[in-house]
Amino acid sequence: MRKILVIGAGRSASSLIKYLLDKSDKENLQIIVADKKIQVARNRIKNHKNAKAIALDIFNEVLRKEAIKNATIVISMLPARFHLEVAKDCVAFSKSMVTASYISKEMQELDAEVVKKGLVFMNEVGLDPGIDHMSAMQIIDKIRNNGAKLLLFESFTGGLIAPESDDNLWNYKFTWNPRNVVLAGQGSAAKFIQEGKYKYVPYHKLFRRTEILDLREYGKFEALANRDSLKYRTVYGLEDVLTLYRGTIRKIGFSRAWNVFVQLGMTDDSYVIEDSENMTYRDFTNSFLAYAPYDSVELKMRHYLKIDQDDIVWEKLIELNIFDATKKVALKRATPAQILQKILMDQWTLKAEDKDMIVMMHKFGYEYKGEKHQINSYMQVIGDDQTYTAMAKTVGLPVAIATLKILNGEIKTSGVQLPITKEIYEPILKELEDYGITFKEEKVTYLGYNPENIMD
Amino acid sequence: MRKILVIGAGRSASSLIKYLLDKSDKENLQIIVADKKIQVARNRIKNHKNAKAIALDIFNEVLRKEAIKNATIVISMLPARFHLEVAKDCVAFSKSMVTASYISKEMQELDAEVVKKGLVFMNEVGLDPGIDHMSAMQIIDKIRNNGAKLLLFESFTGGLIAPESDDNLWNYKFTWNPRNVVLAGQGSAAKFIQEGKYKYVPYHKLFRRTEILDLREYGKFEALANRDSLKYRTVYGLEDVLTLYRGTIRKIGFSRAWNVFVQLGMTDDSYVIEDSENMTYRDFTNSFLAYAPYDSVELKMRHYLKIDQDDIVWEKLIELNIFDATKKVALKRATPAQILQKILMDQWTLKAEDKDMIVMMHKFGYEYKGEKHQINSYMQVIGDDQTYTAMAKTVGLPVAIATLKILNGEIKTSGVQLPITKEIYEPILKELEDYGITFKEEKVTYLGYNPENIMD
Repeated sequence: MRKILVIGAGRSASSLIKYLLDKSDKENLQIIVADKKIQVARNRIKNHKNAKAIALDIFNEVLRKEAIKNATIVISMLPARFHLEVAKDCVAFSKSMVTASYISKEMQELDAEVVKKGLVFMNEVGLDPGIDHMSAMQIIDKIRNNGAKLLLFESFTGGLIAPESDDNLWNYKFTWNPRNVVLAGQGSAAKFIQEGKYKYVPYHKLFRRTEILDLREYGKFEALANRDSLKYRTVYGLEDVLTLYRGTIRKIGFSRAWNVFVQLGMTDDSYVIEDSENMTYRDFTNSFLAYAPYDSVELKMRHYLKIDQDDIVWEKLIELNIFDATKKVALKRATPAQILQKILMDQWTLKAEDKDMIVMMHKFGYEYKGEKHQINSYMQVIGDDQTYTAMAKTVGLPVAIATLKILNGEIKTSGVQLPITKEIYEPILKELEDYGITFKEEKVTYLGYNPENIMD
Repeated sequence: MRKILVIGAGRSASSLIKYLLDKSDKENLQIIVADKKIQVARNRIKNHKNAKAIALDIFNEVLRKEAIKNATIVISMLPARFHLEVAKDCVAFSKSMVTASYISKEMQELDAEVVKKGLVFMNEVGLDPGIDHMSAMQIIDKIRNNGAKLLLFESFTGGLIAPESDDNLWNYKFTWNPRNVVLAGQGSAAKFIQEGKYKYVPYHKLFRRTEILDLREYGKFEALANRDSLKYRTVYGLEDVLTLYRGTIRKIGFSRAWNVFVQLGMTDDSYVIEDSENMTYRDFTNSFLAYAPYDSVELKMRHYLKIDQDDIVWEKLIELNIFDATKKVALKRATPAQILQKILMDQWTLKAEDKDMIVMMHKFGYEYKGEKHQINSYMQVIGDDQTYTAMAKTVGLPVAIATLKILNGEIKTSGVQLPITKEIYEPILKELEDYGITFKEEKVTYLGYNPENIMD
């Protein structure tokens, strides 16, 4: 039997493990699921005859090495910062490895050794990064192979609430790590290139520089820029492309309302609020507004941020109870971001029956025989339930498929890899279709960065 | 002869050295002026018979130790990060020391040794910190000694252009380090307390949360919050005060216009602009605005930041040529902040005949026998010329006066000190009056943080 070691059995490992278990008889597999908490691992395998759950603290060197030594191939679903220890052991014991994370500098440095041993270290083979790489490169390669020149590439992904579970004014719930949602976009300015012009957007303007995306039958969405779109130039071989933009998808109106928190300073994670434990939600909100003893927190806010009487943004704020004078923050030495997260979790936590949704869209502009064309490609995946979420399916299935194809020698180019070559993306994308992860494609008029077709 | 070693002969050392030279005969002083560039030191002493210029690189341990060993007392006018080496040598050779900088953690840690040797290490005895401490503590002590209870303390300082040299729309020129002006206010949120309520202002709102200050015969100004006002609670013994606010003074209208740069992201120093060397001022401005081929940079800016047709802010931007399509940035791998600094230096560099100005204001609110009162105290100093600037006078004179009083045993409490006790501030403030550094004081109606006296 071939042994697949899956390290980390958290939320995003559910569909991955199910896929492998379902294939285990036919493919002659034993699945060893390792987690710090053995119960988490046990819950994933449900006494499946071809599976084994083990307790594994990644910092326990003896147990870690033993588990890796005994495996045929290793999947690390740990947080990205923990991959390296696993990777070093995989090199030492000559095991191929798969992750859904960005290739770190340290991981890249293992390349020579990985090649020498003839191993495949496949990374960035989840959703984003992962399905985005594969689905984009499939069309980019097709355009280039036809002899056309790529002018524009834009790519957007969003982890959202499914339409059937979308029942609040923000059209948003926490379908992944809430802390990452609160901190999204912080750090250095977002950077991209449009028609050859470099553009920079500071964090405090990011949520007001959104654009509208039309995902046809799935509806219209909005997108805001990711931190650094330019690093994809070398990865995708798009050094000469005039427009390169990567972004995050939200439902329309989310960003304009979220901007209220950004403007107030509520998303700041760099300092602690005085006496946070004893303050109410209203006190918290008031701490970002001027002192004015004869005005309400409400009117101070409307005036400060110029929120009109009939602006739906106001109803969104009310829905979150940020003016509530009885609800306590009840967090010791908390940062604004931590307090905001708590306030949001009161409203945005999934109910048992809620489903999540992943949406992705790419735009490709190109020139062929002197004429400009554009292809849009887009997909939507809805979660089955709160175990087999859209997030778990889209992150885990490509990881699982890649692992089996490496094991079976269908993917064989050795080295520290990401899934941007035809050898890799073609079979994985094809199999993903069996699981409902399908892109639709349409040709549209090329408008470049003049989508409203304005003339001077 | 008593030897005073002055390390660092830069711009802010001019008045300090002149003061000491003028007193040298009467006080039996030799002034040894040390600078990395000996010509800078020589220019300061102009062949004065009681002075000597020496070349001293602070990292040359042998020369540094020798110079300190030969001195009776040492003044360090170096950048704050270099004081510690000097301080350690002063401990080793039992010399008292004076600086105009904030006490660092490392400096504070020398306290026990300094006390043991009976030395005085006087710090924070320049302008801000310095004159602000002394002038505030003089009134705070007076209020307390009368048996009143302090309710409110606010303190503001500004380094500005003198009215007679104020000839641009911004009412501002670089009278001190331009880089510090561009980066002012960045980092964590500003934090203060008003009437017992903690308030937090993020950087991107700082320049829109100004208040108006009335400096009577010197005119009205505006003030924006400094980073952390709360640290003065323990320093001044104001643990129970309801309002504590420290700020920076600008001429009215500066901050609202500066906010344009903040909103665009032009003050960011954390990343490098692509191809900065070859871009024009207009390109730089455009890189923060959306791509829109059929609209001008000008209209995109007005729309993005909602600048009305008749807003004076617009004229301020035009004055700086930020839309100029011919002027080149000509800086390699520059950050937005570095490019903005260059653009500003084209317009805000002092002319030979320009004079600078320092303004300071304190507000003290207190309760005495059940009634509330307020004292405002304020001062203005105009520079003589570009050597004996208001900045050099207000930073250097208190340092020089403190040094002589330590040398003469008038200030004698040993340890790592700052000038907040009567023994120190009383004689220094008195002598500063001879040099035109005088506070005016007036009693006003106590309005606390309700300056417009609004009733509900």
